Amino acid sequence: MTVLVLTCEEDLTADIVVSTLQDLGVPLVRLDPADLPGRVSLSAEYAENDFHGYLKSGERMVSLGSLRSVWVRRPGTPGARTAEQSAWIAAEAEQALYGMLTSTQARWMNHPVAAAQARYKPWQLRLAHRSGFLVPATLLTTFPAMARQFAAAHRDLVVKSVSGKHPGDPPMVLPTTRISPDTDFSGVAAGPTLLQQHIPKEADIRLTCVGEHLFAARKKADPEEVDSRFTHQGTWEPVEVPDAVHQAVNSYMSAAQLAYGAFDFAEDPDGAWWFLECNQGGQFGFIQLETDQPIAQAIATWLAVEP
Amino acid sequence: MTVLVLTCEEDLTADIVVSTLQDLGVPLVRLDPADLPGRVSLSAEYAENDFHGYLKSGERMVSLGSLRSVWVRRPGTPGARTAEQSAWIAAEAEQALYGMLTSTQARWMNHPVAAAQARYKPWQLRLAHRSGFLVPATLLTTFPAMARQFAAAHRDLVVKSVSGKHPGDPPMVLPTTRISPDTDFSGVAAGPTLLQQHIPKEADIRLTCVGEHLFAARKKADPEEVDSRFTHQGTWEPVEVPDAVHQAVNSYMSAAQLAYGAFDFAEDPDGAWWFLECNQGGQFGFIQLETDQPIAQAIATWLAVEP
Repeated sequence: MTVLVLTCEEDLTADIVVSTLQDLGVPLVRLDPADLPGRVSLSAEYAENDFHGYLKSGERMVSLGSLRSVWVRRPGTPGARTAEQSAWIAAEAEQALYGMLTSTQARWMNHPVAAAQARYKPWQLRLAHRSGFLVPATLLTTFPAMARQFAAAHRDLVVKSVSGKHPGDPPMVLPTTRISPDTDFSGVAAGPTLLQQHIPKEADIRLTCVGEHLFAARKKADPEEVDSRFTHQGTWEPVEVPDAVHQAVNSYMSAAQLAYGAFDFAEDPDGAWWFLECNQGGQFGFIQLETDQPIAQAIATWLAVEP
Repeated sequence: MTVLVLTCEEDLTADIVVSTLQDLGVPLVRLDPADLPGRVSLSAEYAENDFHGYLKSGERMVSLGSLRSVWVRRPGTPGARTAEQSAWIAAEAEQALYGMLTSTQARWMNHPVAAAQARYKPWQLRLAHRSGFLVPATLLTTFPAMARQFAAAHRDLVVKSVSGKHPGDPPMVLPTTRISPDTDFSGVAAGPTLLQQHIPKEADIRLTCVGEHLFAARKKADPEEVDSRFTHQGTWEPVEVPDAVHQAVNSYMSAAQLAYGAFDFAEDPDGAWWFLECNQGGQFGFIQLETDQPIAQAIATWLAVEP
């Protein structure tokens, strides 16, 4: 049975997983949904209570019935490379591809439905609490009065993007930013704003979960730096996962029905890990590069399991 | 406990459900997500393993903990009415609203995650087969040769939109259209195309499922007309649901985790009902108007149940 890898052409991280699968002798097809229609073609027939379908990319063909797993890595948008681009062709291609693929028995990393739910940060915070993580006090509001009250109660605050997206066109980077409790909060009426208790940070923790395997890495924090996502100082070192965090991760992944998740934590001066977010499509290449943790191999092994 | 109705302002069908809820004495808040931020505001605080939030629309306020159900009817896009519209504000507002709402214990008609999956027509066809419906033979393909082979096997054919959307800007209506088996199919390479065996139609059947209640209506077909969605001839009359169809509907709704679904069938000359599609957000007002079936009342009763 075959592994299907959905990603764009230039994806060095996917290359490592693909070559591991090849070493394991697992048949695979890699394609970019942006190439449908065009280089990628598909067909499915529903007749007499049966369903036969296949996908073709260049000269590689795979039957939908023989898919063991689908890895949604960095797929392009279906229809994005047609000569006559239109929103309609994009919708038709998206429906056809993901409608067919979600009809199969394949295991997903991650299933599109679970992924869509898991992208909601307010939902993440609620699930993180329920799963047993330490979570910084958080307020999401359009009420200036609530923002002022929260700021007065917590004093040391950061402001973040709710969606993880960045404003402007072209987008302007919006890192997590420390703000004074005396800030003028009247502007929150213009759009939901996420305020969070600032956790004094000894280190950043990135925990990558692949099925049942957990890989945690630690980078000592610069005390002046709040959001290290856009800087490149320090090195990531492997670190043991505390038992309580291990259990909370298992509980979160299972409730969210995710096979892959990249968790960000802040380690406080007492060594406690505070949940910041779980990115179901988070990068892992930079962690594997610095720590030598075999994350790509764990992904390949997960994908290779027969359903 | 309160019912939350998400819909646009001018929605006469929602008005009937709302007035039924008012007759039942059930508290409700109706709002359009397009009014967030602005007329609609929200706030949620996550602290000490607890979660408190509320929504406010005009002068009406509802606590998220006291929501018994959410009816997703015809909601506008969050952020659509802000003075400074931007994709970023829209993403932030959407994340905040639906992230908060999916964190609650409320029952959904329908949950956004189930709704997103249920919109995929290829997935619908597969699930319809599994649920025990009669389903016309269907091909979804970008291969001209497969299209020619399917046409030769079935002779009497229709072509449909896969996504249910219509091409062009402004969109051009694309009704289900009967085509000759000798059609030149080379164009299917330009975009996934859905071909289906044409079912000779005695009548159109619209079956509206609300929780455990099924309302079926029948309209005698014009033999010259393939797709009656864009015409207004004939009247809808209530009709009994055959046992086998009843069981298949229950099985489909349960597998799809839907509380509401509008099923379209073609009734053939032998009286058999052939599954065409299930629209999880389908209209019901026109059916209720002609048949007097109490669909809006069934929706109100479903929404009124305490979780």
